[in-house]
Formats: sequence, structure tokens, C-alpha cells
Amino acid sequence: MLQIHECSLCSDSGGELIYKNEEYRVIWVNDPDYPGFIRIILNQHFQEMTDLPLAKAVQLFKVIFKVELVIREVYHPDKINLASLGNLVPHLHWHIIPRYFKDKHFPNPIWGEVTNSSYIPEPWLLLTKGQLFDKLNQILAK
Amino acid sequence: MLQIHECSLCSDSGGELIYKNEEYRVIWVNDPDYPGFIRIILNQHFQEMTDLPLAKAVQLFKVIFKVELVIREVYHPDKINLASLGNLVPHLHWHIIPRYFKDKHFPNPIWGEVTNSSYIPEPWLLLTKGQLFDKLNQILAK
Repeated sequence: MLQIHECSLCSDSGGELIYKNEEYRVIWVNDPDYPGFIRIILNQHFQEMTDLPLAKAVQLFKVIFKVELVIREVYHPDKINLASLGNLVPHLHWHIIPRYFKDKHFPNPIWGEVTNSSYIPEPWLLLTKGQLFDKLNQILAK
Repeated sequence: MLQIHECSLCSDSGGELIYKNEEYRVIWVNDPDYPGFIRIILNQHFQEMTDLPLAKAVQLFKVIFKVELVIREVYHPDKINLASLGNLVPHLHWHIIPRYFKDKHFPNPIWGEVTNSSYIPEPWLLLTKGQLFDKLNQILAK
């Protein structure tokens, strides 16, 4: 497997592992403001989606699609945000973020200005982690 | 075609049109800091990728892939940023942004804090718009 010296996503899992196979891993992003924030990380070091052959990129996209489905089912967000940025760590990974109208940055992206500094996620959002892990494992193992 | 009253992307093209077909349109985002910033907008009003049937979502993903390929070919960016947010306008659209190490927000997302306030895109980046339009039309009409 191609690995790049000093790439943190080559040397480290990148967070709490929910699911892993030969191609990619799914990580719980432990952000207290955004429970249900998930990262999908390609195991091999590629920088851009278009560094992959189209078939592999589509395969990865289908994983994003499945993860989004599960996040919506478990967290009932007002909006889903999807992003592949990698400016700091140019190792292909996707952010999948459930957003709420009253969350800390809404309507900004989570990388933008804080709009609701007193926001605390509703308590039930903190209780569904186990359910999320179970459902993701079910759908991704298929 | 499903249209939502008062959705700005249902009532308006959303910018300078590069290419349009039955399913989607490709728009030149006229951002002086980010020449080559492209938006792909679904014509029909859907909010999330997972509101589409998987086959339609994959079809849209393949358009993103093609547009990314062309942007890389024409603009030679240091990084590509992909995002589907839609917090302000919840009508499915994708941002495809060529990024450079010295650009206005690098390594932040373009919605984050400015890091290089004196940044001016290199002159050649402003001269390739016609080439971008031609290449996108060629690849998307296939």
C-alpha cells in the first residue's frame, strides 16, 4: 500500500474507528459541537478524487452515500454538509456533517464564523453513538 | 420539474452558464480570488444527495469528477476542494474550487479565516476562462 512519510493519515487511523476494510475506514470525529460528524478516509495515499480511477472514485462515492443515509436516519439533521478539502492533510478523506438550524455555525460551514456561541447539542444527539456505529457496520459490511 | 417557491436556484441559473443539460448546469462562480471556481447545480429541487436515487447521485458524482479533471488540467491547482453544503440555499449544488498554497484562505477552507489578505491570483489564471469553458463543454457533452 502506498504510504507517504509524515502523512498523519498514513501513520495513524485518524480517530475512533467505526468500520474498516481494504479500501477505506470510517471514523467518529469526536467533535462535541457536532455529534454524528463522520470522516471517511481512503487507506491508500491519494490526494484528489481524480487521482483515483473513475470506478474506484465511484466506489468511494457510494460509501459516502451510504454513510449520509445512516446519519440522516439516526440524527435527523436539518442539512447534511459534505466536503473533501485536505488542505492541511492532503490524503483523500471526506467530511460528512449533520447540521441543525441552531447549531454553532449555522448557516456557515463549520469552518466559518461562529453564529451561535451558546449552542449545546440536544441531549438525545449524544445518546445515539452506539446506534450509529451498529447501523454503519450493517450497511457498510454489505 | 419540481420547483420550490422562493428557492433562488429554482428561479435563477445561479451565475454565468458554462454548460446545461436536462439534469444539471455548470456555473462559473465569478469570485475574483478564485478563478476557476465552478458550481454544479442540479436543475430539479432536491436538498441532499441521498434524496436522489443512487443511480442519479452516481451520475451527478461523475459530472463532479469530470469537472475536477478539467479544472486540474487548466488551472494546475495545489489542491482541489469539493463541497456540497447548501445551508443557505438548500438546493443541491456542488462547489469545486482550485486552491493554491498562497491563496487568500489557504490552508483554511474558503469559508474560513483569511490567511493571505494581500493575495492576488497570478495573471495567467485570469486568462484561461475561455479554455476552461471549451474543455468543460467538450467533456460534458460526451
